[in-house]
Amino acid sequence: MVTLGEIAAVASARLQGCDAATVIIGVAPLHRAEPGQLSFMTHPRYRPFLSDTQASAVILSTEDAVDCPAPAVVAANPQVAYARVAALFEPLCQVRPGIHPTAWIDPSAQVAPDAWIGPYCVVEADAVIGAGVYLGPHCVVGERAEIGTHSRLVARVTLCHRVRLGQRVLAHPGAVIGSDGFGLALDTGGRWLKIPQLGSVLIGDDVEIGANTTIDRGALEDTVIEDGVKLDNQIQVAHNVRIGAHSALAGCVGIAGSARIGRHCMLGGGVGIAGHLEITDGVQVTGMSLVTQSITEPGTYSSGLAVEPNRLWNKISARLRRLDELFRRLAILEKKINQDGSI
Amino acid sequence: MVTLGEIAAVASARLQGCDAATVIIGVAPLHRAEPGQLSFMTHPRYRPFLSDTQASAVILSTEDAVDCPAPAVVAANPQVAYARVAALFEPLCQVRPGIHPTAWIDPSAQVAPDAWIGPYCVVEADAVIGAGVYLGPHCVVGERAEIGTHSRLVARVTLCHRVRLGQRVLAHPGAVIGSDGFGLALDTGGRWLKIPQLGSVLIGDDVEIGANTTIDRGALEDTVIEDGVKLDNQIQVAHNVRIGAHSALAGCVGIAGSARIGRHCMLGGGVGIAGHLEITDGVQVTGMSLVTQSITEPGTYSSGLAVEPNRLWNKISARLRRLDELFRRLAILEKKINQDGSI
Amino acid sequence: MVTLGEIAAVASARLQGCDAATVIIGVAPLHRAEPGQLSFMTHPRYRPFLSDTQASAVILSTEDAVDCPAPAVVAANPQVAYARVAALFEPLCQVRPGIHPTAWIDPSAQVAPDAWIGPYCVVEADAVIGAGVYLGPHCVVGERAEIGTHSRLVARVTLCHRVRLGQRVLAHPGAVIGSDGFGLALDTGGRWLKIPQLGSVLIGDDVEIGANTTIDRGALEDTVIEDGVKLDNQIQVAHNVRIGAHSALAGCVGIAGSARIGRHCMLGGGVGIAGHLEITDGVQVTGMSLVTQSITEPGTYSSGLAVEPNRLWNKISARLRRLDELFRRLAILEKKINQDGSI
Repeated sequence: MVTLGEIAAVASARLQGCDAATVIIGVAPLHRAEPGQLSFMTHPRYRPFLSDTQASAVILSTEDAVDCPAPAVVAANPQVAYARVAALFEPLCQVRPGIHPTAWIDPSAQVAPDAWIGPYCVVEADAVIGAGVYLGPHCVVGERAEIGTHSRLVARVTLCHRVRLGQRVLAHPGAVIGSDGFGLALDTGGRWLKIPQLGSVLIGDDVEIGANTTIDRGALEDTVIEDGVKLDNQIQVAHNVRIGAHSALAGCVGIAGSARIGRHCMLGGGVGIAGHLEITDGVQVTGMSLVTQSITEPGTYSSGLAVEPNRLWNKISARLRRLDELFRRLAILEKKINQDGSI
Repeated sequence: MVTLGEIAAVASARLQGCDAATVIIGVAPLHRAEPGQLSFMTHPRYRPFLSDTQASAVILSTEDAVDCPAPAVVAANPQVAYARVAALFEPLCQVRPGIHPTAWIDPSAQVAPDAWIGPYCVVEADAVIGAGVYLGPHCVVGERAEIGTHSRLVARVTLCHRVRLGQRVLAHPGAVIGSDGFGLALDTGGRWLKIPQLGSVLIGDDVEIGANTTIDRGALEDTVIEDGVKLDNQIQVAHNVRIGAHSALAGCVGIAGSARIGRHCMLGGGVGIAGHLEITDGVQVTGMSLVTQSITEPGTYSSGLAVEPNRLWNKISARLRRLDELFRRLAILEKKINQDGSI
Repeated sequence: MVTLGEIAAVASARLQGCDAATVIIGVAPLHRAEPGQLSFMTHPRYRPFLSDTQASAVILSTEDAVDCPAPAVVAANPQVAYARVAALFEPLCQVRPGIHPTAWIDPSAQVAPDAWIGPYCVVEADAVIGAGVYLGPHCVVGERAEIGTHSRLVARVTLCHRVRLGQRVLAHPGAVIGSDGFGLALDTGGRWLKIPQLGSVLIGDDVEIGANTTIDRGALEDTVIEDGVKLDNQIQVAHNVRIGAHSALAGCVGIAGSARIGRHCMLGGGVGIAGHLEITDGVQVTGMSLVTQSITEPGTYSSGLAVEPNRLWNKISARLRRLDELFRRLAILEKKINQDGSI
């Protein structure tokens, strides 16, 4: 429960048409908000809802504040303002220090006194758990792993041995950090021999790691996720990948070994990145595209193909396979026309 | 152990060439079945096996029952009949009520007396576990989460806070329901600010959720999976998605935020659905296709491309990138031919 | 800590320019190695680093040993040699026998006396755990499941009931083996009826299963992973798939039901394999390709499309959809030219 005045301060915003003393008890969408609730408008498609909303105030941009029929919290960046304000209503912020009686902690592990270790967590030898860390139920922290201050492992996160997390890292259920990279040597008889993965994983500060995302340890040097990187769910990061600071990767992205992603990149859902290449800073790749070579220029890159009705797609697909023939037939025609003497 | 008569009743089928009193001890494929076992034929490719089968009876369709050399259990829909009959031989049906001594249950949680809570489960404050629910080993049920009657969480399922499951929901190991949606606001300096996800997940009745599938909580309103939806393994459902009743999604499908899938849809393996679009009822999308715009007509849609030998594919791929040139060269030729005056 | 002589023996290699008595304490990349460390060169791009390396010796091929400026461990297959040698420095090799006090083991389960069962493991009725097996924290072994000798489940692996693992299987955190196959029958009203999955999963010897990989049990017969198969992370193997011996599958591959992959195949990251088809031995499929029909000839197959700058891709994509029109316009032109009488 906060006042509009406190909200405006948190959001670095100004109030328009509403009172700083008004109490706000929660957040709701424009069409559902009731008095005492705060709403937001971050896309013009919702403008028609403004006149009817019952929200006590609406977070919106400076442009949208002009001729605004609703009481407003006016911010230069309404999305950021909303993020800051919504955090006031986020239920799970506090870490109540302590160690659940069912947590199993090796005597040699170091656990900060104000950390929380939840039910059935396992913390192995020489692990280091920093100040204010929250380990939800069923987390496993491997030997010599380190977790930086105020990091939060929601539940069921696996940190394999020697993995290092920075400060304020947030990892969601099912994430696995430090599993073996997929290293194989082809031996006689076509059998695969496992190449031991002697490296580790280094995660920076303010990184978010989605549910069931997997980040492999390096073959010899480390796999590195730099500060501020945001990884959605079910992302696969192979050994010796480096992801540059503040890059954001949507769900189901797969990155093969030793690929290097620059800073401030954005990868859409299901994107595949081949190994041993480098993507420069500021690159965006749209959903379900495949990157097979280094990208040296910032910008947006694509190779996804959107659906057509099945019958049409079958024709397109069949024609695609005859593209070579098409080029040859065209070349023959061009030759014929030039032989005719016509221009 | 059941008789053919009981099987016929369960399957809504009639017997042909066999005795209702015959005892059946199990199910086996046509070519392996022995006397005392039941088999089935749901595809004409297996017809040649009928004459030699030693099965005591074979479930098949009315059409296939004509001139059938084997004893038959004749059903209008043999697949459904088989499903009902096989359930008689399914080993894990019963819920033996109780709470394993190692389960950790918050005193404020409500657990129905005939539910089973297995080893190392964690049930948090104010959670509600309904009648006949089965929680296998290592499940985590978050604060205020609710599980409807006769639902079954096989093992290691994570329900985050406030998630609501309907009745007879079946969730497989590693499923995560209610992890944070991937909400980010771009702040100064290109840093990402997390947008708290204040919504929840609402799962209907008779929903099946595959192994390691992830379903994110909504940003403000809920992510909704309607009654009878069937989700295979490793599916990613982003925040604020709604999946319509009785839709079936094969493995590794990824659905981006705020997409809406209609009722009775079928999505093939690896399909990607972009965000903020709507797919009407009765749509089928074939494997590994990408949907980027709303689909307003029922039917089948595709954009997957099947492999060719690598050399040929490299040519096709190279030609594809020169398609624009092809169109231009063709247009030039067409203009030349028309200037020639020839028809 | 080993000597170069012992290393040469393990690697089936000969020493060149270095002393068998030299003590090696670890492995490092060429540009970082210090005296007392071993390095390796498995790709010509690293040759320039050889003259400056401070490594006590470098594993390399017979070809690269010619005119080699660094002390060398010369092997016919340096990758295999490196794999064997790195295993000497791999930290987690020993299994210290015992059962953690928090492991919950059904009295009817059989556990070899030299196995290790870690914290919070659950071993259900009639399970069989073979000699030298290692179960890390939080593993779940279902009823009647069997684990062959010297297998290692790193942590949090789920083996569902009746699953059978061979010898020396290595499974990484989050792997799920034996979840229900996705079997559904379409019933009246468009509702889906679950088809019970009565089969199991059979995993051979020396199989490696990556983090969060899922392998479903068969509908009636088993899903089979043959000896020596290597599965990376987040792979989905549907019911009744058979993967032939010594095949290697990179991350995020999805294989639909009843597909059969031959021996010594290699599938790149994100490859999709449709159901009910057969891929012969020795087939390679490049990343993010889709296989929809049986492949009867060894070789390499592709259908992935690599990114272009977004603007160019939009043109290519738009042209692609008009391919049919292109063929027709070309055919019209060809007809016109032939009518002209010109050759």
